Order: sequence, then structure tokens, then C-alpha cells
Amino acid sequence: MRFTKGHGTGNDFVILPDLDGALDLTPERVAALCDRRRGIGADGVLRVVRSAAATDAPEGPEFFMDYRNSDGSLAEMCGNGARVFVRYLLEQGLAGGSKLEFGSRAGVITAVADGDEIAVAMRRPAIVGQSSAMLGALQLAGQAVDIGNPHLVCRVPDVDIVDLRDAPRFDAAFFPAGVNVEVISGDASLTRMRVYERGSGETLSCGTGACAVAAVVLGGADGTVPVEVPGGRLTITIEPDRCWLAGPAVLVAHGDVLI
Amino acid sequence: MRFTKGHGTGNDFVILPDLDGALDLTPERVAALCDRRRGIGADGVLRVVRSAAATDAPEGPEFFMDYRNSDGSLAEMCGNGARVFVRYLLEQGLAGGSKLEFGSRAGVITAVADGDEIAVAMRRPAIVGQSSAMLGALQLAGQAVDIGNPHLVCRVPDVDIVDLRDAPRFDAAFFPAGVNVEVISGDASLTRMRVYERGSGETLSCGTGACAVAAVVLGGADGTVPVEVPGGRLTITIEPDRCWLAGPAVLVAHGDVLI
Repeated sequence: MRFTKGHGTGNDFVILPDLDGALDLTPERVAALCDRRRGIGADGVLRVVRSAAATDAPEGPEFFMDYRNSDGSLAEMCGNGARVFVRYLLEQGLAGGSKLEFGSRAGVITAVADGDEIAVAMRRPAIVGQSSAMLGALQLAGQAVDIGNPHLVCRVPDVDIVDLRDAPRFDAAFFPAGVNVEVISGDASLTRMRVYERGSGETLSCGTGACAVAAVVLGGADGTVPVEVPGGRLTITIEPDRCWLAGPAVLVAHGDVLI
Repeated sequence: MRFTKGHGTGNDFVILPDLDGALDLTPERVAALCDRRRGIGADGVLRVVRSAAATDAPEGPEFFMDYRNSDGSLAEMCGNGARVFVRYLLEQGLAGGSKLEFGSRAGVITAVADGDEIAVAMRRPAIVGQSSAMLGALQLAGQAVDIGNPHLVCRVPDVDIVDLRDAPRFDAAFFPAGVNVEVISGDASLTRMRVYERGSGETLSCGTGACAVAAVVLGGADGTVPVEVPGGRLTITIEPDRCWLAGPAVLVAHGDVLI
């Protein structure tokens, strides 16, 4: 089985070309590939398949991004994964030009490539209320943001001194499906962010999290915010009906899986 | 640049074939390859080079294992790395038979392959005294073992409930170069072990650590001890003048590095 490994601001992915939909990609196989010590290691798998060969592809685009979490479960969409998916299509010559569309379980995704940067159009984040989280003995007040998945964005004096090794405790009545917790410092000229992703722990980057952070920093208005995550820098642009997630997307290696 | 990824009980390595010694393998390049999110990801790099093309190879064996830590620093030897190195030589047809020798910075290493298992001969561990470590508020008494690098082996009621996320505190007068701390439970019929490696944190396996543990479990006598580490099972056999480290060694992927 051929694979490519790539990352976007430190969110990394195993890309599996399967244009004709011939792979039997079980959850166990995905988890084995994503195992960081005994497999290739990644935050998730991006299967590249022609829409005509995918059962759940939206109409229109030629290619479908079949995204799987590292535990093998299906997911609708992954912002940084989508950016790496576009890099793969471009570098393999499966797509060309600076603007393209592809399918996902969240519908048709629009992407724009500009040199090292790839931007994808996400849902516009919605600030939905106030809540708080506990990190150990530290209580953090924050704003709740919905962008298809739930976020709690909490301002702190210095993101570097926050301990994100344990899962934050949150209001389960407010977030019945759990919540991703972002801590931020800085302002709209440059916001620094760290994130605890539900089910994963602290990660180097989170695309929807960066969009949620920009919504809070802009106070619900439109605009552009550079967001520095541990894995690099993203640029978020909120427009009336969507939110652009832009940043580098890099392919690291091509190869053949032996396991 | 071609690479192979492999692991031995969850200690994983990027293997770089460089038979003629043409690679300029800087510390920065090693660290970039070992980066788990932005590179291929590994605990270390095994450069495979003909002894004739290596400046520091011992006389005799055809191949030399140039081992580098994930931060790019040189290391003399790595037990699990040596087992994966042998698997690579065998699967690439660079060596054959069940017994072979190769060079390392710690001298000539003898290895025996038997199906899925590969054993390498290590130094016989020496119990050198008593000391203790603090894990948070928990004080652990242990036995100090030297096997080229320093270990402190501490018996606990249940290895699963020990928190190894923070570095253990130890007697710096006793261990001036730091120490690897193993916690163990069980007995000589099956010993369970977890390890905090100095400079790395908790790892899924540690070859020298398993040898040190066997020495303590056997009370300094010769014998065989199965040691279950989080990444699998190792079998340690202590003989009068050496210590065999045996266990599975697996190649996971072959490919080309793009970064």
C-alpha cells in the first residue's frame, strides 16, 4: 500500500491514494497506521478517492477526502487535513490552478493555493455563550464557539505557563458532547493559542480551534487574525458567510507500508 | 533520500541506507527526521554504512551501525535499535544466516535471529548499590545498575498506577550523569516494567533498562527473565560475560524523504 506523510502546522496525516476506492480501510488498520511508535504515526488518515468511487461524496468535485481520526473513527472534516489534502492533489498533478474544490462529509470544500500557503473555506464560527473550564486548580472563564464542533476560548496572561497535560474539566450540561479548550494571549495583530482537543490531548495545531479563536478575538466581527499555534502560524479571515483557514501544508515522505 | 521505518517493542527508528558513507547527516537533519509531527518521527536514526566507509567503525564486521539520538547527538549503542538494524540487514539481503556481527561505537555487536525474534549481546549489567528516587510525593527505594548507562530499578506494587509524566528526582551525588528510572512488579517468571529515560521521558521500551531489571530480579545471578514493557515483551538472558536482549523487531515502511 502506497502512502504519503504530510502536515499542516504540525497536524500530521497519512495520505492513502485510493483513486478507485479499492482499499478496505478498517478502523483497526487506520489506528495501526496512525500508531506513532509501531506504525507510521499521524493525527489522522486522508484517503484520496474519486467521488464516483465513494459512497458518501457530494456531487460535483472529482475527488473526495475520506478523513479518519487516529482511532479509526469517521470524521466529517478536518481543516488542517483539508489543507494537506489539497497539497497532495497539487503535487501529484491530480488538480491544478490556484482555486479548487473537493468533496468531504461536510460537503464541498473550496480551497485556494498560494505558494507555500493553502487556504480552505470553513464554516463561519458562531459565539454561542459563556462558560468556564478548570485546569487543575485554575479556573478559566471563556467564550463558547460553535463551528460544527464545540470550542471554549479562554484568555490567559501567558499561554506558555498553562499546564494542558490533563483534560480540562468543563460544564457537561453546556457541552454535552465535550469541548475543545483553547487558551489564548495577545491581540488581533497576533494571537497565540494552545489547544486541548477532546479525545486527543494537547496538539500542535487545530484548524477549527484557530477559527474559533479568531471569532473571539474579533468580537464576532469580520476580519483577519494571525494565530500562532505551537506548530506554526495560521491566518484566519472571517467573512460574512465563511471563514478562511490559511497556512503552510507540507509533504514529508512518500513510501510503501509494510505492515 | 531513501528511508525505512522500523521498531523493536515500540522503540522506533528511521533507518537510512548509506552504504558508501555519502550522507552528510547533521544533528539538525537527524532532529528534523525524528520530529514526530513535522518529520517521519522516531526515537533515533540508524545509519547503515559499510565499515570501510565509516571513520569510527571497529575492525571486522562488514557493516557499521551509526546510531543517533532523536536530538541529533551521537550515541554509542542502543539495544532495541541494534535489533532493528539486524532486521534491516536481513530483510535487505545485506546479511544472512542466523548469527551475525556488526560494528557500533561500543565495539562489535553479536546478534542472533530466530524467526520474529532478534537477540543482541549486551554488556552484563552490574548491580552497584542502593539509592532512591522521588516521583512527585512518592519515594521509591531502588537498586542502582550500571550497563554502560546508569539505571535505578524500583519495585512497586503495581506499575500501572505510577505517574511517570514528570522526571523523577534522584540523588545527583550518586548519579552525576543522571539516571534512567525503572519501576517493576511481578517476579522472574514475568516481570512488568515501565521506564523514564533521562532526556526522553517515559518510553514504550528500553533495552538496557530491561537488562538492568533482569539483573535485579535475578539478584545478580545468571538466568532468563521475560520482561513486559508497554511496547511488548523482551526476554533477557544473563550469562557470565554478557546479557542477551531478545524480542521482536519489525520494519513498518520503506520510502523517500521529501524534506
